[in-house]
Amino acid sequence: MSIEQELKQAIRDVADFPKEGIVFKDITPLLSDPVLSDKIGDALLDRVKDLKPDAIVAIESRGFLYGFLLANKLQIPFIPVRKKGKLPGDTLEYTYDLEYGSATVEIHTMDVKPGWRVLVHDDLLATGGTAQAAAELILMQGAHVAGFAFVVELSFLGGVKKLNHYTDNIVSLATY
Amino acid sequence: MSIEQELKQAIRDVADFPKEGIVFKDITPLLSDPVLSDKIGDALLDRVKDLKPDAIVAIESRGFLYGFLLANKLQIPFIPVRKKGKLPGDTLEYTYDLEYGSATVEIHTMDVKPGWRVLVHDDLLATGGTAQAAAELILMQGAHVAGFAFVVELSFLGGVKKLNHYTDNIVSLATY
Repeated sequence: MSIEQELKQAIRDVADFPKEGIVFKDITPLLSDPVLSDKIGDALLDRVKDLKPDAIVAIESRGFLYGFLLANKLQIPFIPVRKKGKLPGDTLEYTYDLEYGSATVEIHTMDVKPGWRVLVHDDLLATGGTAQAAAELILMQGAHVAGFAFVVELSFLGGVKKLNHYTDNIVSLATY
Repeated sequence: MSIEQELKQAIRDVADFPKEGIVFKDITPLLSDPVLSDKIGDALLDRVKDLKPDAIVAIESRGFLYGFLLANKLQIPFIPVRKKGKLPGDTLEYTYDLEYGSATVEIHTMDVKPGWRVLVHDDLLATGGTAQAAAELILMQGAHVAGFAFVVELSFLGGVKKLNHYTDNIVSLATY
Protein backbone atom coordinates (compact mmCIF):
# COMPACT_ATOMS: atom_id res chain seq x y z
CA MET A 1 0.00 0.00 0.00
CA SER A 2 1.37 3.46 -0.88
CA ILE A 3 1.86 6.09 1.82
CA GLU A 4 -1.00 8.03 0.21
CA GLN A 5 -3.33 5.04 0.53
CA GLU A 6 -2.24 4.49 4.14
CA LEU A 7 -2.88 8.14 4.95
CA LYS A 8 -6.30 8.15 3.34
CA GLN A 9 -7.25 5.02 5.27
CA ALA A 10 -6.22 6.64 8.56
CA ILE A 11 -7.44 10.24 8.11
CA ARG A 12 -10.91 10.68 9.55
CA ASP A 13 -13.65 12.78 7.95
CA VAL A 14 -15.56 14.87 10.48
CA ALA A 15 -18.77 16.35 9.08
CA ASP A 16 -19.80 19.95 9.82
CA PHE A 17 -16.54 21.03 11.49
CA PRO A 18 -15.60 23.79 12.11
CA LYS A 19 -18.98 24.78 10.67
CA GLU A 20 -21.93 23.30 8.84
CA GLY A 21 -21.24 22.00 5.35
CA ILE A 22 -17.46 21.55 5.85
CA VAL A 23 -16.00 18.04 5.91
CA PHE A 24 -12.90 18.34 8.11
CA LYS A 25 -9.89 16.09 7.50
CA ASP A 26 -8.82 15.03 11.01
CA ILE A 27 -5.15 13.99 11.17
CA THR A 28 -5.15 13.00 14.86
CA PRO A 29 -5.44 9.27 13.98
CA LEU A 30 -2.04 9.62 12.26
CA LEU A 31 -0.54 10.93 15.51
CA SER A 32 -1.88 7.92 17.40
CA ASP A 33 -0.06 5.55 15.05
CA PRO A 34 3.71 5.73 15.74
CA VAL A 35 4.69 3.44 12.86
CA LEU A 36 2.69 5.47 10.34
CA SER A 37 3.93 8.76 11.84
CA ASP A 38 7.53 7.67 11.36
CA LYS A 39 6.73 6.64 7.77
CA ILE A 40 5.24 10.11 7.19
CA GLY A 41 8.44 11.69 8.49
CA ASP A 42 10.54 9.46 6.24
CA ALA A 43 8.31 10.10 3.22
CA LEU A 44 8.58 13.87 3.71
CA LEU A 45 12.36 13.49 4.14
CA ASP A 46 12.59 11.49 0.93
CA ARG A 47 10.56 14.09 -1.03
CA VAL A 48 12.46 17.19 0.19
CA LYS A 49 16.05 16.09 0.87
CA ASP A 50 17.26 16.93 -2.65
CA LEU A 51 16.14 20.53 -2.06
CA LYS A 52 18.88 20.71 0.61
CA PRO A 53 16.97 23.21 2.77
CA ASP A 54 18.95 25.20 5.36
CA ALA A 55 15.99 25.34 7.77
CA ILE A 56 12.31 24.47 8.18
CA VAL A 57 9.70 27.12 8.93
CA ALA A 58 6.56 25.51 10.32
CA ILE A 59 3.19 26.94 11.21
CA GLU A 60 1.58 26.83 14.66
CA SER A 61 0.28 24.58 15.90
CA ARG A 62 -0.28 21.37 13.91
CA GLY A 63 2.68 22.22 11.69
CA PHE A 64 4.89 21.83 14.77
CA LEU A 65 4.34 18.04 14.78
CA TYR A 66 5.74 16.60 11.54
CA GLY A 67 7.69 19.82 10.97
CA PHE A 68 9.84 19.32 14.05
CA LEU A 69 10.19 15.60 13.34
CA LEU A 70 11.34 16.41 9.79
CA ALA A 71 13.81 19.04 11.05
CA ASN A 72 15.18 16.35 13.37
CA LYS A 73 15.52 13.84 10.54
CA LEU A 74 17.21 16.46 8.30
CA GLN A 75 19.24 17.83 11.26
CA ILE A 76 18.48 21.43 10.31
CA PRO A 77 17.10 24.37 12.36
CA PHE A 78 13.38 24.55 13.09
CA ILE A 79 11.77 28.00 13.06
CA PRO A 80 8.21 28.52 14.29
CA VAL A 81 5.68 30.86 12.72
CA ARG A 82 3.17 31.73 15.44
CA LYS A 83 0.01 33.72 15.93
CA LYS A 84 0.64 37.35 16.84
CA GLY A 85 1.75 37.94 20.42
CA LYS A 86 3.19 34.49 21.16
CA LEU A 87 6.85 34.93 20.22
CA PRO A 88 8.77 36.79 22.92
CA GLY A 89 11.64 38.30 20.88
CA ASP A 90 11.74 40.87 18.11
CA THR A 91 9.43 39.78 15.29
CA LEU A 92 8.32 40.49 11.78
CA GLU A 93 4.60 40.12 11.15
CA TYR A 94 2.38 39.46 8.16
CA THR A 95 -1.38 39.94 7.94
CA TYR A 96 -3.49 38.03 5.46
CA ASP A 97 -7.18 37.83 4.59
CA LEU A 98 -9.45 35.06 5.78
CA GLU A 99 -12.97 34.32 4.57
CA TYR A 100 -14.20 36.65 7.31
CA GLY A 101 -11.66 39.11 8.71
CA SER A 102 -7.89 38.60 8.77
CA ALA A 103 -5.10 36.85 10.68
CA THR A 104 -1.61 37.98 11.65
CA VAL A 105 1.37 35.66 12.10
CA GLU A 106 4.88 36.39 13.30
CA ILE A 107 8.43 35.07 13.06
CA HIS A 108 11.50 35.91 15.16
CA THR A 109 13.76 38.26 13.20
CA MET A 110 16.97 36.57 14.32
CA ASP A 111 15.97 33.08 13.22
CA VAL A 112 16.15 33.17 9.40
CA LYS A 113 19.52 34.09 7.87
CA PRO A 114 19.76 36.08 4.59
CA GLY A 115 20.45 33.76 1.67
CA TRP A 116 19.10 30.63 3.35
CA ARG A 117 16.91 28.24 1.37
CA VAL A 118 13.95 27.55 3.66
CA LEU A 119 11.36 24.78 3.51
CA VAL A 120 7.83 25.73 4.63
CA HIS A 121 5.80 23.02 6.38
CA ASP A 122 2.24 22.66 7.57
CA ASP A 123 0.14 19.55 8.10
CA LEU A 124 -2.53 20.55 5.60
CA LEU A 125 -2.72 22.81 2.54
CA ALA A 126 -6.18 24.33 2.21
CA THR A 127 -6.52 27.80 0.64
CA GLY A 128 -2.79 28.45 1.16
CA GLY A 129 -3.14 31.74 3.04
CA THR A 130 -1.02 30.74 6.02
CA ALA A 131 1.68 29.03 3.93
CA GLN A 132 1.87 32.15 1.78
CA ALA A 133 2.23 34.30 4.92
CA ALA A 134 5.15 32.07 6.02
CA ALA A 135 6.75 32.47 2.56
CA GLU A 136 6.42 36.26 2.75
CA LEU A 137 8.06 36.29 6.21
CA ILE A 138 10.97 34.32 4.72
CA LEU A 139 11.38 36.70 1.75
CA MET A 140 11.20 39.75 4.06
CA GLN A 141 14.44 38.49 5.65
CA GLY A 142 16.37 38.09 2.39
CA ALA A 143 16.03 34.31 2.33
CA HIS A 144 14.52 32.03 -0.31
CA VAL A 145 11.65 29.56 -0.31
CA ALA A 146 13.18 26.19 -1.21
CA GLY A 147 9.85 24.41 -1.17
CA PHE A 148 6.58 23.68 0.58
CA ALA A 149 5.87 20.30 2.19
CA PHE A 150 2.43 19.22 3.43
CA VAL A 151 1.07 15.93 4.71
CA VAL A 152 -2.37 16.54 3.16
CA GLU A 153 -3.53 18.79 0.31
CA LEU A 154 -7.14 19.78 -0.39
CA SER A 155 -6.52 20.46 -4.08
CA PHE A 156 -10.11 21.59 -4.75
CA LEU A 157 -9.40 24.71 -2.64
CA GLY A 158 -6.68 25.83 -5.07
CA GLY A 159 -3.94 26.60 -2.51
CA VAL A 160 -1.17 25.70 -4.98
CA LYS A 161 -2.11 28.73 -7.09
CA LYS A 162 -1.14 30.98 -4.14
CA LEU A 163 2.21 29.23 -3.68
CA ASN A 164 3.61 28.30 -7.10
CA HIS A 165 5.03 31.71 -7.87
CA TYR A 166 7.41 31.24 -4.89
CA THR A 167 8.65 27.83 -6.05
CA ASP A 168 7.59 24.81 -8.08
CA ASN A 169 8.64 22.49 -5.26
CA ILE A 170 5.27 21.85 -3.61
CA VAL A 171 5.04 18.40 -2.04
CA SER A 172 2.06 16.74 -0.39
CA LEU A 173 1.79 13.09 0.60
CA ALA A 174 -1.97 12.73 0.17
CA THR A 175 -4.14 14.81 -2.16
CA TYR A 176 -7.92 15.11 -2.10
CA MET B 1 28.89 19.90 29.83
CA SER B 2 25.63 18.43 31.20
CA ILE B 3 22.40 18.71 29.22
CA GLU B 4 21.15 21.11 31.92
CA GLN B 5 24.16 23.37 31.40
CA GLU B 6 23.74 23.21 27.62
CA LEU B 7 20.07 24.13 27.96
CA LYS B 8 20.73 27.04 30.28
CA GLN B 9 23.37 28.36 27.92
CA ALA B 10 20.93 28.24 24.99
CA ILE B 11 17.67 29.39 26.62
CA ARG B 12 17.18 33.11 26.22
CA ASP B 13 15.79 35.42 28.90
CA VAL B 14 13.32 37.96 27.53
CA ALA B 15 12.51 40.74 29.99
CA ASP B 16 8.94 42.01 30.45
CA PHE B 17 7.22 39.29 28.37
CA PRO B 18 4.31 38.59 28.28
CA LYS B 19 3.98 41.51 30.69
CA GLU B 20 6.12 43.89 32.73
CA GLY B 21 8.16 42.30 35.49
CA ILE B 22 8.14 38.76 34.03
CA VAL B 23 11.39 37.28 32.71
CA PHE B 24 10.31 34.87 29.99
CA LYS B 25 12.38 31.75 29.27
CA ASP B 26 12.48 31.57 25.45
CA ILE B 27 13.12 28.03 24.16
CA THR B 28 13.19 28.94 20.45
CA PRO B 29 17.03 28.92 20.39
CA LEU B 30 16.82 25.20 21.26
CA LEU B 31 14.63 24.61 18.21
CA SER B 32 17.21 26.32 15.99
CA ASP B 33 19.91 23.90 17.14
CA PRO B 34 19.26 20.45 15.64
CA VAL B 35 22.08 18.72 17.53
CA LEU B 36 20.88 20.06 20.88
CA SER B 37 17.24 19.31 20.02
CA ASP B 38 18.10 15.69 19.31
CA LYS B 39 20.01 15.54 22.61
CA ILE B 40 16.93 16.89 24.40
CA GLY B 41 14.82 14.16 22.81
CA ASP B 42 17.34 11.51 23.85
CA ALA B 43 17.63 12.92 27.39
CA LEU B 44 13.85 12.86 27.82
CA LEU B 45 13.79 9.31 26.41
CA ASP B 46 16.47 8.22 28.85
CA ARG B 47 14.61 9.76 31.81
CA VAL B 48 11.15 8.29 31.01
CA LYS B 49 11.74 4.99 29.24
CA ASP B 50 11.66 2.92 32.46
CA LEU B 51 8.14 4.25 33.08
CA LYS B 52 7.10 2.28 29.98
CA PRO B 53 4.31 4.73 29.05
CA ASP B 54 1.61 3.52 26.66
CA ALA B 55 1.14 6.99 25.15
CA ILE B 56 2.18 10.64 25.42
CA VAL B 57 -0.33 13.41 26.01
CA ALA B 58 1.18 16.77 25.06
CA ILE B 59 -0.14 20.27 25.40
CA GLU B 60 -0.75 22.71 22.52
CA SER B 61 1.28 24.23 21.06
CA ARG B 62 4.90 24.19 22.27
CA GLY B 63 4.35 20.77 23.87
CA PHE B 64 3.81 19.43 20.35
CA LEU B 65 7.52 19.87 19.53
CA TYR B 66 9.58 17.66 21.86
CA GLY B 67 6.41 15.71 22.74
CA PHE B 68 5.99 14.41 19.20
CA LEU B 69 9.73 13.79 18.85
CA LEU B 70 9.70 11.80 22.10
CA ALA B 71 6.64 9.79 20.99
CA ASN B 72 8.56 9.01 17.81
CA LYS B 73 11.63 7.90 19.75
CA LEU B 74 9.49 5.76 22.10
CA GLN B 75 7.30 4.58 19.19
CA ILE B 76 4.09 5.15 21.17
CA PRO B 77 0.89 7.06 20.34
CA PHE B 78 0.85 10.86 20.58
CA ILE B 79 -2.35 12.47 21.88
CA PRO B 80 -2.82 16.25 21.70
CA VAL B 81 -4.50 18.35 24.37
CA ARG B 82 -5.78 21.48 22.67
CA LYS B 83 -7.55 24.71 23.46
CA LYS B 84 -11.34 24.41 23.38
CA GLY B 85 -12.87 24.27 19.92
CA LYS B 86 -9.82 22.98 18.00
CA LEU B 87 -10.32 19.19 18.12
CA PRO B 88 -12.94 18.08 15.57
CA GLY B 89 -14.16 14.83 17.18
CA ASP B 90 -16.01 14.08 20.43
CA THR B 91 -14.06 15.57 23.32
CA LEU B 92 -13.82 15.77 27.08
CA GLU B 93 -13.00 19.19 28.46
CA TYR B 94 -11.45 20.55 31.63
CA THR B 95 -11.54 24.15 32.85
CA TYR B 96 -8.92 25.53 35.21
CA ASP B 97 -8.19 28.86 36.86
CA LEU B 98 -5.60 31.30 35.58
CA GLU B 99 -4.29 34.36 37.37
CA TYR B 100 -7.08 36.29 35.70
CA GLY B 101 -10.03 34.26 34.43
CA SER B 102 -9.90 30.64 33.31
CA ALA B 103 -8.89 28.39 30.41
CA THR B 104 -10.52 25.28 28.94
CA VAL B 105 -8.62 22.47 27.21
CA GLU B 106 -9.92 19.37 25.43
CA ILE B 107 -8.90 15.86 24.45
CA HIS B 108 -10.48 13.44 21.97
CA THR B 109 -12.48 10.82 23.87
CA MET B 110 -11.39 7.96 21.61
CA ASP B 111 -7.68 8.57 22.00
CA VAL B 112 -6.82 7.44 25.56
CA LYS B 113 -7.65 3.81 26.42
CA PRO B 114 -8.80 2.81 29.93
CA GLY B 115 -5.93 1.34 31.92
CA TRP B 116 -3.19 3.01 29.88
CA ARG B 117 -0.21 4.55 31.64
CA VAL B 118 0.17 7.97 30.04
CA LEU B 119 3.10 10.39 30.10
CA VAL B 120 2.21 14.10 30.14
CA HIS B 121 4.58 16.44 28.31
CA ASP B 122 4.94 20.18 27.95
CA ASP B 123 8.00 22.25 27.16
CA LEU B 124 7.89 24.24 30.41
CA LEU B 125 6.45 23.69 33.89
CA ALA B 126 5.34 27.00 35.42
CA THR B 127 2.39 27.00 37.84
CA GLY B 128 1.32 23.55 36.62
CA GLY B 129 -2.29 24.44 35.78
CA THR B 130 -2.21 23.11 32.23
CA ALA B 131 -0.29 19.94 33.11
CA GLN B 132 -2.81 19.27 35.88
CA ALA B 133 -5.66 19.77 33.40
CA ALA B 134 -4.02 17.18 31.10
CA ALA B 135 -3.72 14.77 34.04
CA GLU B 136 -7.40 15.22 34.92
CA LEU B 137 -8.39 14.52 31.29
CA ILE B 138 -6.39 11.27 31.48
CA LEU B 139 -8.00 10.17 34.76
CA MET B 140 -11.50 11.00 33.42
CA GLN B 141 -10.93 8.26 30.83
CA GLY B 142 -9.94 5.56 33.32
CA ALA B 143 -6.24 5.78 32.51
CA HIS B 144 -3.26 6.50 34.78
CA VAL B 145 -0.62 9.24 34.82
CA ALA B 146 2.73 7.43 34.45
CA GLY B 147 4.71 10.65 34.75
CA PHE B 148 5.27 14.23 33.70
CA ALA B 149 8.22 15.26 31.52
CA PHE B 150 9.26 18.86 30.90
CA VAL B 151 12.25 20.43 29.21
CA VAL B 152 12.33 23.37 31.64
CA GLU B 153 10.94 23.82 35.16
CA LEU B 154 10.45 27.16 36.91
CA SER B 155 10.62 25.64 40.41
CA PHE B 156 10.00 28.96 42.18
CA LEU B 157 6.42 28.88 40.82
CA GLY B 158 5.70 25.65 42.71
CA GLY B 159 4.09 23.68 39.88
CA VAL B 160 5.32 20.34 41.29
CA LYS B 161 2.97 20.79 44.26
CA LYS B 162 0.00 20.65 41.85
CA LEU B 163 1.30 17.50 40.18
CA ASN B 164 2.89 15.24 42.79
CA HIS B 165 -0.33 13.73 44.03
CA TYR B 166 -0.79 12.20 40.56
CA THR B 167 2.68 10.63 40.48
CA ASP B 168 6.19 11.08 41.88
CA ASN B 169 7.66 10.74 38.41
CA ILE B 170 8.17 14.38 37.48
CA VAL B 171 11.12 14.95 35.18
CA SER B 172 12.61 18.20 33.95
CA LEU B 173 15.91 18.63 32.15
CA ALA B 174 16.70 22.15 33.38
CA THR B 175 15.43 23.69 36.61
CA TYR B 176 15.43 27.38 37.54
